[in-house]
Amino acid sequence: MTVAYDGTDFAGFQIQAGRRTIQEVLEHAIARITDESARVAAAGRTDAGVHASGQVVSFRSESALDIRILRRAIDALLPCDVAVVDLREVPPSFHARFSARGRQYRYAISTGSEKPVRQRRWIYHWHSPLDVVAMAAAAQNLVGHHDFSAFCGTLRGRDRPTDPRRTLFRLHCWELDRTVVVDVAADSFLPQMVRNIVGTLVQVGARNLDVSDIRGILAGRNRQCAGVVTAPARGLCLTRVWYD
Amino acid sequence: MTVAYDGTDFAGFQIQAGRRTIQEVLEHAIARITDESARVAAAGRTDAGVHASGQVVSFRSESALDIRILRRAIDALLPCDVAVVDLREVPPSFHARFSARGRQYRYAISTGSEKPVRQRRWIYHWHSPLDVVAMAAAAQNLVGHHDFSAFCGTLRGRDRPTDPRRTLFRLHCWELDRTVVVDVAADSFLPQMVRNIVGTLVQVGARNLDVSDIRGILAGRNRQCAGVVTAPARGLCLTRVWYD
Repeated sequence: MTVAYDGTDFAGFQIQAGRRTIQEVLEHAIARITDESARVAAAGRTDAGVHASGQVVSFRSESALDIRILRRAIDALLPCDVAVVDLREVPPSFHARFSARGRQYRYAISTGSEKPVRQRRWIYHWHSPLDVVAMAAAAQNLVGHHDFSAFCGTLRGRDRPTDPRRTLFRLHCWELDRTVVVDVAADSFLPQMVRNIVGTLVQVGARNLDVSDIRGILAGRNRQCAGVVTAPARGLCLTRVWYD
Repeated sequence: MTVAYDGTDFAGFQIQAGRRTIQEVLEHAIARITDESARVAAAGRTDAGVHASGQVVSFRSESALDIRILRRAIDALLPCDVAVVDLREVPPSFHARFSARGRQYRYAISTGSEKPVRQRRWIYHWHSPLDVVAMAAAAQNLVGHHDFSAFCGTLRGRDRPTDPRRTLFRLHCWELDRTVVVDVAADSFLPQMVRNIVGTLVQVGARNLDVSDIRGILAGRNRQCAGVVTAPARGLCLTRVWYD
């Protein structure tokens, strides 16, 4: 199932007792329509405040309902900030997280002086222009297979990955109408990796860091390294997940 | 001053004791920065839930502050759902409401089966396709100088206008990516006039009304006339105001 959500009013994807999470509202809607207790696995366990337009989740069901009816019924039972984009049957071996070959995120930054009223839940407002050419040049140092420990956050309740190496397929910075967009794709991401990369690129764009500093930060393999800044969750959106 | 706002969490533009209104937050911000008690007049007194990207308000101030500093300071003091787009000095005779020559509104309707998660505060979700050609044909019957009593709402606390005649300059329906947009411009509008026109055009698009029914509804000059439906506030946005 492909789902879209506004992460603003959620404590993240993963279920947590007493908090509103995407996993909980999805499992609740599926259970209500199928009369089975559902357990949902996600391609990307997005943090509190992070959005999705193309999150992929998988679950098992014995339901005999027509898949189009199931799709519509789940969507109707979900709150207004979560929607079903697509639902299809897959082989039993499919797992939204472990079968995924790649994930793509988009981060949006408003650089206009005016507060972005309409997009404010979906965009990080940086009050002044950013040097997007410098950001793009710095980004090139991160593309490829690297140890990304320098950009790995420490999140409560989540284990640090045993292998901090990831392959960044693409890291593209571009600008349109006073909005800077960072598109990033990788096999998978460490916790807060996108927000740490974007926050650090913004420092380059604001000329607080040089383009060449990025290489040293990456090589340092240390999140405590001076210069690494975590961009706020609200600008981040999981846009796509690839499978074979 | 040109302002933009997300009307979702407001009880409308006009000040009301104990309720959150656009007028109140604007006057509060202006008073804080100028140390004068401000009274703001608006080109369009938008209803609860109605948005603006180009609302125009006027106020008097003796402040000696540079206009650019004043603009930034007011914007900074406003909540995240209201922004200052522009601020300029005008002749003392200028009044945002009485000097206005025309207003333009845009109404957005999502016709896709998927819930519009990202735009949900700004769009009316109609679950199935609409015949936008029929809507455009019906709309042509409303353009021009007419008595619009049939499309005038009765709002608590607001007087019924003495003259229900208005001149509709333009009423344009178009569709893009499963979003139907209605752009409407007039010298001024009766209470709820845009939402009543759009709600009725949607009935035409859904084939609950014929194109030719619109002419009869307009001629009936009676809001109780069968067929007139009020579209929800959230799809409506005041986009522009004209002055000489």
